[in-house]
Amino acid sequence: MAVPPSTYPRRLLPLFLGLFQGALLLFFALFVTYDEPSAQAEDTSLVANQIYSTFPFFQDIQVMLLVGLGLLLTFLPRYGFSALTHNFLLLTFSMQWALVLQGLLHHFHHGQIHLDLHKLLISEFAAVTVLISVGAILGRASPCQLLIMATCEIPIYLASEWVIVTCLGVLDVGGTITIHVFSCYFGLGVSKALFRATKQPLHPKETPTTSSDLMSLVGTLILWVFWPSFVAVLCQPGDAQHRAILNTLLAMSASAITTVVASSLLDGDGKLSPGHLQNGSLAGGVAIGVVADMAMPPVAALALGSLSAVVCVLGFTFLTPLLRRKLTLNDQCGIHNLHGLPGILGATASVVAVLVASKDTSGSQPSQLFLVGGNASEVVEGQWGGRGVGGQALCQAAGLAVAVGASLLAGLLTGVALRLPCLARPPERLCFDDSLYFKVQDEAESPGPDSSAEEGALALKEQV
Amino acid sequence: MAVPPSTYPRRLLPLFLGLFQGALLLFFALFVTYDEPSAQAEDTSLVANQIYSTFPFFQDIQVMLLVGLGLLLTFLPRYGFSALTHNFLLLTFSMQWALVLQGLLHHFHHGQIHLDLHKLLISEFAAVTVLISVGAILGRASPCQLLIMATCEIPIYLASEWVIVTCLGVLDVGGTITIHVFSCYFGLGVSKALFRATKQPLHPKETPTTSSDLMSLVGTLILWVFWPSFVAVLCQPGDAQHRAILNTLLAMSASAITTVVASSLLDGDGKLSPGHLQNGSLAGGVAIGVVADMAMPPVAALALGSLSAVVCVLGFTFLTPLLRRKLTLNDQCGIHNLHGLPGILGATASVVAVLVASKDTSGSQPSQLFLVGGNASEVVEGQWGGRGVGGQALCQAAGLAVAVGASLLAGLLTGVALRLPCLARPPERLCFDDSLYFKVQDEAESPGPDSSAEEGALALKEQV
Amino acid sequence: MAVPPSTYPRRLLPLFLGLFQGALLLFFALFVTYDEPSAQAEDTSLVANQIYSTFPFFQDIQVMLLVGLGLLLTFLPRYGFSALTHNFLLLTFSMQWALVLQGLLHHFHHGQIHLDLHKLLISEFAAVTVLISVGAILGRASPCQLLIMATCEIPIYLASEWVIVTCLGVLDVGGTITIHVFSCYFGLGVSKALFRATKQPLHPKETPTTSSDLMSLVGTLILWVFWPSFVAVLCQPGDAQHRAILNTLLAMSASAITTVVASSLLDGDGKLSPGHLQNGSLAGGVAIGVVADMAMPPVAALALGSLSAVVCVLGFTFLTPLLRRKLTLNDQCGIHNLHGLPGILGATASVVAVLVASKDTSGSQPSQLFLVGGNASEVVEGQWGGRGVGGQALCQAAGLAVAVGASLLAGLLTGVALRLPCLARPPERLCFDDSLYFKVQDEAESPGPDSSAEEGALALKEQV
Repeated sequence: MAVPPSTYPRRLLPLFLGLFQGALLLFFALFVTYDEPSAQAEDTSLVANQIYSTFPFFQDIQVMLLVGLGLLLTFLPRYGFSALTHNFLLLTFSMQWALVLQGLLHHFHHGQIHLDLHKLLISEFAAVTVLISVGAILGRASPCQLLIMATCEIPIYLASEWVIVTCLGVLDVGGTITIHVFSCYFGLGVSKALFRATKQPLHPKETPTTSSDLMSLVGTLILWVFWPSFVAVLCQPGDAQHRAILNTLLAMSASAITTVVASSLLDGDGKLSPGHLQNGSLAGGVAIGVVADMAMPPVAALALGSLSAVVCVLGFTFLTPLLRRKLTLNDQCGIHNLHGLPGILGATASVVAVLVASKDTSGSQPSQLFLVGGNASEVVEGQWGGRGVGGQALCQAAGLAVAVGASLLAGLLTGVALRLPCLARPPERLCFDDSLYFKVQDEAESPGPDSSAEEGALALKEQV
Repeated sequence: MAVPPSTYPRRLLPLFLGLFQGALLLFFALFVTYDEPSAQAEDTSLVANQIYSTFPFFQDIQVMLLVGLGLLLTFLPRYGFSALTHNFLLLTFSMQWALVLQGLLHHFHHGQIHLDLHKLLISEFAAVTVLISVGAILGRASPCQLLIMATCEIPIYLASEWVIVTCLGVLDVGGTITIHVFSCYFGLGVSKALFRATKQPLHPKETPTTSSDLMSLVGTLILWVFWPSFVAVLCQPGDAQHRAILNTLLAMSASAITTVVASSLLDGDGKLSPGHLQNGSLAGGVAIGVVADMAMPPVAALALGSLSAVVCVLGFTFLTPLLRRKLTLNDQCGIHNLHGLPGILGATASVVAVLVASKDTSGSQPSQLFLVGGNASEVVEGQWGGRGVGGQALCQAAGLAVAVGASLLAGLLTGVALRLPCLARPPERLCFDDSLYFKVQDEAESPGPDSSAEEGALALKEQV
Repeated sequence: MAVPPSTYPRRLLPLFLGLFQGALLLFFALFVTYDEPSAQAEDTSLVANQIYSTFPFFQDIQVMLLVGLGLLLTFLPRYGFSALTHNFLLLTFSMQWALVLQGLLHHFHHGQIHLDLHKLLISEFAAVTVLISVGAILGRASPCQLLIMATCEIPIYLASEWVIVTCLGVLDVGGTITIHVFSCYFGLGVSKALFRATKQPLHPKETPTTSSDLMSLVGTLILWVFWPSFVAVLCQPGDAQHRAILNTLLAMSASAITTVVASSLLDGDGKLSPGHLQNGSLAGGVAIGVVADMAMPPVAALALGSLSAVVCVLGFTFLTPLLRRKLTLNDQCGIHNLHGLPGILGATASVVAVLVASKDTSGSQPSQLFLVGGNASEVVEGQWGGRGVGGQALCQAAGLAVAVGASLLAGLLTGVALRLPCLARPPERLCFDDSLYFKVQDEAESPGPDSSAEEGALALKEQV
């Protein structure tokens, strides 16, 4: 039942975005303002220092998400422009939407919402979940479907993050549980409900070329370089942040090398798979997030990085084909291998870390060991001190369960909603192709060096 | 009257640059020195803090201009290498030239010019004007013409900036009027005078391919990410800088989404145009510069961003073809849509902002509302306090008029100068092609996978 | 004696890396820990400030090495993926290896090694030498050979750096002598011993295409932008660091323009060579490192930048072919022109700078003029004060001699070791091709727009 690509639903995208933008303007006009200008000189210097300490991290994360993640998604050779643009569009849309929801939910004091860089950062973290989830259905969904998906995912993420961090007091400074695990299972849920039992045949445009793989690897490198900023930005300044940076660097180094080992061993010819490199090198960053600022020995970061790379590569080789065959589950970018499995590994590691840390110090002063990342404005240190070691370990596990359960359920429901015919999922024949959504020139029609006829014609017309 | 591409003028480029470099060495040897080393410990810590607060911004701007803007210009599929190189060459040349002129004009105290990072930053801002203006004639001008254009534009920019900021006291922390509007009309003037009434037919190498569009979009994303650094670097530290960053982020977010809406609505099939995305997403950054640090409500930044994206996309769709038809005005990169129209919009917004701000506070203490960006070393706060609200609004408008008038006139004159035959404008037939200026391998001659004959020959020779 | 590409040695890579990773885990488990958490509030703020002042520089350098240098090496059109991956793998491997060796050699106090960001930075500097040296044999060596080369080079670098900086007291804040000169001659030694007297014929896949040249130029620009961070990161905060940044910027500006002049003059048609641009623009950064923080006039930085660009371009045009013909020396990336010649030039300049500086101040207080870069933990200021001007100049020259001599000898020996058959150097026929090491899709097999047969088949199967 192929929807003709150029009829009604094409107007849905500008309509939806236009209405959203209008509502956003209204919301900002009514409720949002800046902080009062600081009257005193000391305050000015304080604000300035906050900018100098936060803004570079913020910029690093922007580069990661827009350039790094965008390029990573360009591995589909004829879908690169779409991947980059949709990633860009979803980031800006989701940030604005998260800003609105956060304003409504948390910060509705005195009728005014005071905007600052920290609130934008929190919104950006929320938007990351959408960018990850989209990986499961990349290339087979219309922009409208992606936007509806973002619209559903952001509030569910905020609710789930509130339950996990504020209610359960889970320690997760790098978003391993709240962001990576959540968004992975949300994306898989959407994919399952959207494509149901349809076995997707291998599309001829699905196979990366050398040059699209190269661009994608550049994206991986950009993500790899700036990942420590992502993990450490919300840490307590000082030792905890220092440790988070070092742990992330160690874990990602170990990931990179272990990926080469694992990928090479799994191939009969010993050749490396580009997909493994592009994803496995980052697996350590996903796993380390939840324990990055904890006072564990450096070797633990290395081991966690290695292990998560192994898990990621094994997932690509064995689990993804299995899920596709048994559950007819389509996971285009392999987000389960990069975000799901390493995320679960990291969450498990955090349980172990809590238990081990307590043993080291005889359980006397656990709160000193864990310099809790000041996630949003919640301070959980006191809670944990009161809760005891076993309780905290249990909470970490409960947080993981909440993230997996809530996201799967919500993802399945969202996926059902995305089946609405008016959202115009592209017919399989037209998937993975930029020309469905963009006025792009086909490479084949590009002027070749042998276009001598045209040049001759031009030469005649020439008037210079 | 096609100039044979490999005769005299080819020697002009090294001659010109070589002489310039020699003169620069002489100038530096005679007049330029570093600041005296700070004798005391407090001074050392002060200098260190200045570096930590300025240098990251400076690096962000360098990335924007060299990598971001460079890649944005690679949308011409067979002219990417030239675009990137000329952008690089013009930036370094213009910075040095601006450094010399600024030294001569402003800082000639005691015979010595003290070089510091701030002066380099100011020179970089001057160089930006050249990089923007060049967009109007990209691909149809020789490197010599571009260098002569830079040589003319930098002193005119410095004079115009002095009139606008120092004499008129215009508030323009992000360079909307002084940089964007100025360079746009300068470029259009050059283009008009250089090509006169010649209707340029569509060149076969002018159409972007998917992969050149992709590279160009990566450039846009890099510019998009680092734009807040460009706008905020010269702000007063503290609240004003914080506000400038936030306003720029908001305006650019709104631009990105509104561009999708506008581009989609304007196309019959609802397809997005890559050119719109590449430019429209940045329009908000151009417009917001002039009001970024003013104490206006956040909604104004969003509205300005949206509006400028609409104006930019409409400009591409209707105004550019109209100007080409009616005025035979060639604007290769559409700089009028990205820099001209949003710049004028921003300048208008600044007039409104000044008037509205005064009404809010009954005109009592306007200078508190506007934490003036410490542009260069001029402090205009006092002036404005003395001048009154209406006066300041008038000044903003006058600044715009000066920028448009001076740049158009100077651009036209410069364009006439560029018609000198010795500058060797390439014949139309050879335009938009890297091979005119670079020893590059033609793609067609590149070793294909089927180059089995060569490989066979190699295999025979093989000695390992 | 072509080794069949898919037999035994393929298992060597994972075996070697796996063992290394295991040993690293053991080493970290036994010896490495983090600094004690700082107990007091002042310490926390101190640690935080150290992060804010070092981490942005560190990230800049990571971007340089992984993205910038990686892209620079993609000029081989069919070897880009390998170049990028091997660069990534070698950086992470060498950093870990340097971390281990440094731990063992220098920091073995009290049985525990305290890891911090500064130690990672020092390890990264060590890793740079490997990345540079590899340029001499790029495309003709197997990954195993590259790893063995890194394994040999890191300890020799650490020893040579210790002799040069600590024993001889050479001033070299930007690593001109210790890193660039050392790694260049090490790489040339390896190349000579590995390929012996074999004249390598021009391989058909060796010639860059326009698009591979474009990517490579993007890499150059990224390196160019972030080079000041590399030179200045280890400087004394304050004036010395400020000067190092400015000197590097000036030298690199001059390099960029002079490269255009020189490349244009050397070509009969006045066309620029992409290779000259990609390398010559960076030559100034190599040369300036050794004098960047010295109190010399700015004109010296400009002159040094210009001169090194000339030397680099002349090297490419005359010296590289000569070395290839006379000494059958293969230098794939021209590292002798980018790192060797400008490095020697810089070292010579440092001798002159020491002598001139002393004359200016009548030799009374030389140590005030040279705010010595606090390289690692060595403080050489006192030494130099005691040693006198002539002594210091001699030391600079001696440092150069040590770097050249030690690296050439060690490189030759390493090259001999790399001839071990089990390391599986690829046969010439299969060089410069990604498909030897990676499961990549050949461009020729990629789905073209005319793949109508496949699409028809898909359309039949379509079920949406």
